[in-house]
Amino acid sequence: MDEEYMRRAIAQAKQSKQYIGCGVVIVKDGHILAETYNKQKESCDATAHAEILAIRAAGGQLGQKDLDGCTVYCTCEPCTMCLSAIIFAKVPRLVYGTSMQETFPDNLPITLTSQELLAHAPHHIDIVSGYLHDECATLLSK
Amino acid sequence: MDEEYMRRAIAQAKQSKQYIGCGVVIVKDGHILAETYNKQKESCDATAHAEILAIRAAGGQLGQKDLDGCTVYCTCEPCTMCLSAIIFAKVPRLVYGTSMQETFPDNLPITLTSQELLAHAPHHIDIVSGYLHDECATLLSK
Repeated sequence: MDEEYMRRAIAQAKQSKQYIGCGVVIVKDGHILAETYNKQKESCDATAHAEILAIRAAGGQLGQKDLDGCTVYCTCEPCTMCLSAIIFAKVPRLVYGTSMQETFPDNLPITLTSQELLAHAPHHIDIVSGYLHDECATLLSK
Repeated sequence: MDEEYMRRAIAQAKQSKQYIGCGVVIVKDGHILAETYNKQKESCDATAHAEILAIRAAGGQLGQKDLDGCTVYCTCEPCTMCLSAIIFAKVPRLVYGTSMQETFPDNLPITLTSQELLAHAPHHIDIVSGYLHDECATLLSK
């Protein structure tokens, strides 16, 4: 099932108008709660990363802010803002494709890895990295 | 002028229904672009911290995602999610009241200080901490 959901995240990323497209799908018990892509420029909102938009939408679907039991599928490794949001939303599982270093080879926006941030988190998150890596990496070459 | 804006942020924080209320005001060239408070539970959105909501609103007012020339007034020290958002929005100046340690004396949500995160930021942010501290601290005692 992971493959189906990550392929949907990749399809979302392709719709992004940003220079670097990122797609996210959030799933609980086999139901897709949110699927979206980053849209900072078009929405005039620096916080409009795909993960933030998806967490908001998924919470709306569930009628609660906590996303327990959910898996977040992300074509690229979440940044410190988005990983913090994933932690605050109590997401137990994260699956992502390309690493931050690949996504921003020359200019990492914030040079703190997700592992470094997660070492400061109050709960464990089960993480699968590099999932469908090559397909996700093609999103970075436009 | 800092005092006027921080007092407005304090007034915003008092409207919050969260256990810990946080108020934020964003100002550019003497114009208030956004003023709001945290509303995670009522909006079923773990990302609905005051700073995130205010950055979104201010960007909408300016018609662009970058908040250059803006000052963010916050009753409490921004968390890693919100400070990352402040960095991404290219905010040049941040004024806040109480520290994270005061806000969460027993259970810091993410044990990474803003100074530690800022050491990884791509640009400098001018920060005033402890501003109107005692008034801001009264917001934490409810």
